[in-house]
Amino acid sequence: MNEKGCGGGRKKRGKELVFVALGGLGEIGMNVYLYGYGRQDARQWMMVDCGITFPEGENDPGIDVILPDVRFIEENRADLAGIVLTHAHEDHVGAVIELWPRLKAPIYATPFTAGMLKAKLAEYGRGLELPIHVVPLDGKFAVGPFDVELVTLPHSIPEMSALAIRTPAGMVFHTGDWKIDETPMITEPVDESRLSALGDEGVLALVCDSTNAFREGTSPSESDVAQSITEIIKGAKGRVAVTCFSSNVARIKTVADTARETGRHLVVAGRALHRVIDVAIDTGYLPQSFRYLDQDRFSDLARRDVVLLCTGSQGEPRAALARIAAEEHPAISLAKGDLVIYSTRAIPGNEKAVGRIQNSLARIGCNLLTDSDALVHVSGHPRRDELRQMYRWIRPEVVVPMHGEARHIQAHAALAREMGVRDVFPVLDGEIVRLAPEPAVVDDAPVGRLFRDGRLLIAEYDGPVRERRKLSYVGIVVVTICLSRGGEVLGEPQAILDGVPHETADGDAMFDVVLDAIDGTLRSVPTKRRKAPDLVAEAVRRAVRAAVGDVWGKKPVCKVLVSVIDN
Amino acid sequence: MNEKGCGGGRKKRGKELVFVALGGLGEIGMNVYLYGYGRQDARQWMMVDCGITFPEGENDPGIDVILPDVRFIEENRADLAGIVLTHAHEDHVGAVIELWPRLKAPIYATPFTAGMLKAKLAEYGRGLELPIHVVPLDGKFAVGPFDVELVTLPHSIPEMSALAIRTPAGMVFHTGDWKIDETPMITEPVDESRLSALGDEGVLALVCDSTNAFREGTSPSESDVAQSITEIIKGAKGRVAVTCFSSNVARIKTVADTARETGRHLVVAGRALHRVIDVAIDTGYLPQSFRYLDQDRFSDLARRDVVLLCTGSQGEPRAALARIAAEEHPAISLAKGDLVIYSTRAIPGNEKAVGRIQNSLARIGCNLLTDSDALVHVSGHPRRDELRQMYRWIRPEVVVPMHGEARHIQAHAALAREMGVRDVFPVLDGEIVRLAPEPAVVDDAPVGRLFRDGRLLIAEYDGPVRERRKLSYVGIVVVTICLSRGGEVLGEPQAILDGVPHETADGDAMFDVVLDAIDGTLRSVPTKRRKAPDLVAEAVRRAVRAAVGDVWGKKPVCKVLVSVIDN
Repeated sequence: MNEKGCGGGRKKRGKELVFVALGGLGEIGMNVYLYGYGRQDARQWMMVDCGITFPEGENDPGIDVILPDVRFIEENRADLAGIVLTHAHEDHVGAVIELWPRLKAPIYATPFTAGMLKAKLAEYGRGLELPIHVVPLDGKFAVGPFDVELVTLPHSIPEMSALAIRTPAGMVFHTGDWKIDETPMITEPVDESRLSALGDEGVLALVCDSTNAFREGTSPSESDVAQSITEIIKGAKGRVAVTCFSSNVARIKTVADTARETGRHLVVAGRALHRVIDVAIDTGYLPQSFRYLDQDRFSDLARRDVVLLCTGSQGEPRAALARIAAEEHPAISLAKGDLVIYSTRAIPGNEKAVGRIQNSLARIGCNLLTDSDALVHVSGHPRRDELRQMYRWIRPEVVVPMHGEARHIQAHAALAREMGVRDVFPVLDGEIVRLAPEPAVVDDAPVGRLFRDGRLLIAEYDGPVRERRKLSYVGIVVVTICLSRGGEVLGEPQAILDGVPHETADGDAMFDVVLDAIDGTLRSVPTKRRKAPDLVAEAVRRAVRAAVGDVWGKKPVCKVLVSVIDN
Repeated sequence: MNEKGCGGGRKKRGKELVFVALGGLGEIGMNVYLYGYGRQDARQWMMVDCGITFPEGENDPGIDVILPDVRFIEENRADLAGIVLTHAHEDHVGAVIELWPRLKAPIYATPFTAGMLKAKLAEYGRGLELPIHVVPLDGKFAVGPFDVELVTLPHSIPEMSALAIRTPAGMVFHTGDWKIDETPMITEPVDESRLSALGDEGVLALVCDSTNAFREGTSPSESDVAQSITEIIKGAKGRVAVTCFSSNVARIKTVADTARETGRHLVVAGRALHRVIDVAIDTGYLPQSFRYLDQDRFSDLARRDVVLLCTGSQGEPRAALARIAAEEHPAISLAKGDLVIYSTRAIPGNEKAVGRIQNSLARIGCNLLTDSDALVHVSGHPRRDELRQMYRWIRPEVVVPMHGEARHIQAHAALAREMGVRDVFPVLDGEIVRLAPEPAVVDDAPVGRLFRDGRLLIAEYDGPVRERRKLSYVGIVVVTICLSRGGEVLGEPQAILDGVPHETADGDAMFDVVLDAIDGTLRSVPTKRRKAPDLVAEAVRRAVRAAVGDVWGKKPVCKVLVSVIDN
């Protein structure tokens, strides 16, 4: 890197500190943030988090998972000094394993976060080995030109680490996901004096969680939730099932402690929960003595003697709770009068799926308790008073609201301005913000989504998902015609209809509508012109689409294959 | 009808009063209720409401609207004495026009409800004429053996009419959708003495709204909402846009009154709003002098001088607000600092669509105000204290919770039992309840959903929607092969791939994967056996699916057309 020329000619910009999100600001749901330092043509980069998000049904048919399109940094891979993970939620770490081969940079994570990543790697990594550097809680380490200091903050998972990033251009405080919680159960409360000290040292820029920027006040504490759940389980007469995000170790501990207190056995169902419990025991968040019964023991226990902790709180169709609700679980069944506690909140888009499972449970006769009935869940993100407190501690010159859709980013930006912050950048994915010197939006990075489609990763703008979306609306008709070189029709034209209504309003077969359109067209094209198979194909295609459109009101995808036979 | 034999032989049941929902109780979202009276083999029926519901994206691809499958009553059409409409919401009346040709019974509705139905008929009815009997508010009329008395109750639309249904077997009170509102703005408050008088007369069965059976307390009044919206608009500095359910005439009046008070012009955008306003003026819910500016005037007005009332509160992609948010509306544009009030609540399943539009508005720089920020919306359904009050007025012997998913029905049933009701039937769609004598579930009616697919109505269990769902997950490959009678392959086999990834992970064309599988299979089948085209087709189909599955991890729909040519 050429160190000279700094502050040189007017046209050449000197070394800059920049920030850009490849996801997490606006449309692209997963979190991937990049900090760059250096001259414009020679930046070194640090990635913070690399998560996944989930598809939106009808818009992304047949897709399991969505990953960030990281081609911007992939092209600059040699300058990527490292990937720092703030915490183990899937929207922050879920894409690391699949995308690492495109990035090949060292990974930094605290023990629990690293443990979760390694557990997933063992299950899905197909022998891939990742250079995971396990760093201590509140530790310090260098990633290229970035001096990183971790600052543990409360969140709904252990070891959420904010980053104090010191650079020659100033310090950035990247909050990750956080809340203020005086009694967070299994981790320490916010260390106010440490955050104040950072503010005293002088923070150039705060990059901060916007999830709850609409919500006034302060969130309840995880301990309040624990107390409420404990009371509810104590009062229950039949079986109690609790479903929560599997990574919420504090919630797992609450349920386990209450089970012990009330003389009930704890049964745990769902692979994701088993994995989290194993990692939490390894890293000391659950005691080495932590025990639970396997799901096969469930049916032996009296109704009064069991608390079930299970996956499926987001309506996932293959998770334990969905199978229990459908009365299809191999080991577990609930019955009239049993209590199901939803210690969770539906992620937007999952409401219908959650509702369907709750309806099935209601049909069985289970009593349901959700966060609208009692304090059985609390968000892990800061409400507006918590944000204000963070601003008072950190006193940043520049703010970039992060982690939210456009409306959350805007609401957070308005609050930052109210708090007197000089430069507020409510930017969206791909907008490159120069944090110093002279804060400004300076450039654009390409961003997008990668679909995991079966085993393949496919860029969003590529065809198959778009094609399937179209098929899902209008179906398809494929026609095949055999012609001789001379243009004679050989054999019978054939057609396949899929996803198209079988009958017209008059009760005619749609298949016949298609065959009539083919025959009519072939008859109308003189044999001579039939020597041009493309023309025949196009004429038939139009005729079939029009004929089906007439009786259906929708035009299917139509493809015509003409085989030319030497005879 | 055979009147003899009543109370005769033990095996023959006498005249009975029965109730069944063809939608509205559980899974099937729209409301269609039937009351039957008479001996089991000779019942006369009255239908109450006949609504539509909307599809759930990925599960119902390509579907615009879902109607109830009414074949149960269609088969007994001669015994259907009439269709009574409680109010003009689409989930109660939306299927009347399309299904009437299958039912052909007289329709009874109050002036506003009839007006809304006629307005829709004029727009979409294609010349169909319906026998609509306009009955007065709180009027009495007979429908076969049912003596119906309308009882107006407050709801989020004018003229919601509960039905006191007197029969020889006792009186049923069918609430429709209702709330208790002391100050409902444009209609009268609940007439307590009249409901008490019904209770004094003796009500056999209460069939009652369950929508808000989870929510404790009493809903705020429509007037509270009006006051809040008025204050907000008074305080606004730029343009104000309000979006609400188009049928909420009270809300329309609030916005119009506030516009006048604050010296702003009212602009109305969206056909559904225009239609409701016309009907409301005709029926006296808005004054004859009601005026608003056409959307073309919007751009002439100073920002401080306009209130826009627009459709699109549920995220509908073609409604006014969606086009404004996308900056694609021909006449209306909003800008940074303008205020958009969501005077509505997202219907479950619409959250994502609403959020997308709110994000677009935030990106423009609009300020958003929703019902989580201020009292700008209130539900039209009774909370638990309102339900309790209804039970105290009506004092029914039997209760059937209506209008809700299974979990709402269950919660309502529990409340009814708490209120001391003897017989509570938390039944679901299709379960036939005998209300008298000896209340019991006695039978099942076939129920289901009809999809409006283009211009056709298709029963749910029929193929095309299921086929399209499959296509949307895995795409399709169609292969065509020409064989001679002797089993020779003529010309080149061809293939079409749609919705299938174009490349493998190794960068090979998927098309070549398919062609290789076809060629390999054809080579492996001896010419002699190729004389059986079905065997060839099946072998190729399997090979193609397996080959694509190997590299993709998903197996597409695969169809093979074999043409046999005389050569």
